[in-house]
Amino acid sequence: MSFEIPPSLGIHGNADIAKDILSRIWGKRGVFTCTVGNTMTSTIPGISDAGDTPELTLFTPAADAEMLVLGKTVCMKGIPINPGGIPTPATLTMAALQLSGMPLYIVDGGTKIKPNLPCFDVEGKYGESILTGKAVKNVRRSFELGKILGEMLSKTYDFVVVSESCAGGTTTALAVMMAMGVVKENLVSSSSPNNPKELKTKVVNDALAAAKIKIGSLAKDPLKAIECVGDPMMPANIGMMIGAAKRVPVIVGGGTQMAAVIAAAIALDPSIIGNITQGTTRWLVNDPNSDIRKIMASVHPDIPIVYVNMDYSESPYEGLQAYEWGYIKEGVGCGGSSVAAIAQSAGTITCKTLLDKVHEIYEKLLDL
Amino acid sequence: MSFEIPPSLGIHGNADIAKDILSRIWGKRGVFTCTVGNTMTSTIPGISDAGDTPELTLFTPAADAEMLVLGKTVCMKGIPINPGGIPTPATLTMAALQLSGMPLYIVDGGTKIKPNLPCFDVEGKYGESILTGKAVKNVRRSFELGKILGEMLSKTYDFVVVSESCAGGTTTALAVMMAMGVVKENLVSSSSPNNPKELKTKVVNDALAAAKIKIGSLAKDPLKAIECVGDPMMPANIGMMIGAAKRVPVIVGGGTQMAAVIAAAIALDPSIIGNITQGTTRWLVNDPNSDIRKIMASVHPDIPIVYVNMDYSESPYEGLQAYEWGYIKEGVGCGGSSVAAIAQSAGTITCKTLLDKVHEIYEKLLDL
Repeated sequence: MSFEIPPSLGIHGNADIAKDILSRIWGKRGVFTCTVGNTMTSTIPGISDAGDTPELTLFTPAADAEMLVLGKTVCMKGIPINPGGIPTPATLTMAALQLSGMPLYIVDGGTKIKPNLPCFDVEGKYGESILTGKAVKNVRRSFELGKILGEMLSKTYDFVVVSESCAGGTTTALAVMMAMGVVKENLVSSSSPNNPKELKTKVVNDALAAAKIKIGSLAKDPLKAIECVGDPMMPANIGMMIGAAKRVPVIVGGGTQMAAVIAAAIALDPSIIGNITQGTTRWLVNDPNSDIRKIMASVHPDIPIVYVNMDYSESPYEGLQAYEWGYIKEGVGCGGSSVAAIAQSAGTITCKTLLDKVHEIYEKLLDL
Repeated sequence: MSFEIPPSLGIHGNADIAKDILSRIWGKRGVFTCTVGNTMTSTIPGISDAGDTPELTLFTPAADAEMLVLGKTVCMKGIPINPGGIPTPATLTMAALQLSGMPLYIVDGGTKIKPNLPCFDVEGKYGESILTGKAVKNVRRSFELGKILGEMLSKTYDFVVVSESCAGGTTTALAVMMAMGVVKENLVSSSSPNNPKELKTKVVNDALAAAKIKIGSLAKDPLKAIECVGDPMMPANIGMMIGAAKRVPVIVGGGTQMAAVIAAAIALDPSIIGNITQGTTRWLVNDPNSDIRKIMASVHPDIPIVYVNMDYSESPYEGLQAYEWGYIKEGVGCGGSSVAAIAQSAGTITCKTLLDKVHEIYEKLLDL
């Protein structure tokens, strides 16, 4: 394959497929979507750091969506931060979208706290704690509506980015991947470097027991796995992937949360392989506390990872430097939107221009 | 102004503004939206012919939206027709969208029967009969969300088309325009040549009385007029117009229903004048049973009408010929989408290519 990837991007996994997809979307017009969802799983103390307190994790998806569309939050004061004061990865997503001018749509997968903006409605409801074993309602309906949305977008754009903001999502992702037998142990990430692996593993095991699911018993019924132990971000995105990837390449923006979405989508429709790449960040790919490479190898060897080589180590702001110390790493499609912006601009947008824009956005948001 | 309009289009009203807008969108990329809404007003026997029975008028907006997005209806069997077997104007909208490849989004202004597809949600509720004097809930919220949607679309498209499918909408439009004092008598259209003017006038007068509104008493508060005697299609579209027209031209697709929307939008924000044109059909402009020219002159002399010169008199199908006899004339943005398709294609799309496509669609839908 003659396509040369620029230094701002890296590839892991099947490089032929990654380069084929990149070459087909290089300089073309994409559309970015972010699906927001709430799962009460995020309010289990200790599970999610995506919010200053367990209750505030429910506001994070709406606040992220508002930042992307409105440039500010309405549902809460300030911007979504981790307890240490580290800003949401939406800051990078905003930079990628502003530089590229890519259209942006928010999909409401099912929220308790709704963003104050017009979302695509897929008739989803917010999810219960997976400890109930009955986590998500209306899964098949949201999946079908997501599929129509993917088809709609693929008719007028050359590629589609799907992504997520759903606090608690790495735990639900682990549960769904265990139910599908994609992973048999906890390899998932966290927005904290002190990844609470034992707690997540216990919650997932209890959830699977509550739903009477054995590891791998739902390999062929991922929508059932989501109904039992998933979250409402998943069905909409699975539908969108399948709907769009029949016609155009799809960048699946996100880390371990989206690995579960990819696993479910290709279990339902393997014909989309070859038109799907994960789009994420260097931070996630190199995270010592999780293993996206191993997870994706288990999901399927032909779904490559394309990551953006963002590096915040030289940033003057500690809140951003923290990304280098294992905080945040991914979310709100920050990796996928960056990969998409670089591709749409045929490489004119780089990690350097993205970093400058992140600083501009960060300074404006924090009134520095 | 040196811009020459092609024979497929006609202009009424301020030709300078119309030509200025057309010249700015000629060959550019637009986006088409259709806002669906239900008002129980359409179930008052005799008020609406947009459906085979008064109850079926509630299904017409959802069915129209499904036709545009899915190419078929899901919420009901067959396609929306007037009692005489005359097909919905969505057939022309479909032709314009398919020929132009223009992106298409449905906005759910507030429906009792929801389309089976992902709509933009503006948190609207379906409307009560205007005879209650308390017709629409959540008007200000839907207006605000519509405004954000208009802003979103204007960031990535060169022009925006807004339109409607809302049975009973000419009656609610008359009521709102009377409340605003834009018209003082019944000049509105109907999907039937036997326009039930006396019934509409009586319903409107009773509605205004129920809401304690005098003619013109709400000239400065159009959203209040809608709360009392309007329908839920209106606030979303008014917001979208204002949100989008600050940046790009807006084609307001529709007839007398959209005259009320335009009147309300410019009452709230007159700065958008110059970036707004109505987009409709020759059938409506020449309708002997209504007077869009007089209505629009009352709304504002600087909102021009651009109409598509579609002519179904040579069509082999009686259902389409009926458009020449005063049936249907407008709806589902058929005029606005046709004007937009012609403009986006820089005149490559014509009435001739649209007619051929309408025949193809009509034959496929009716399995001829």
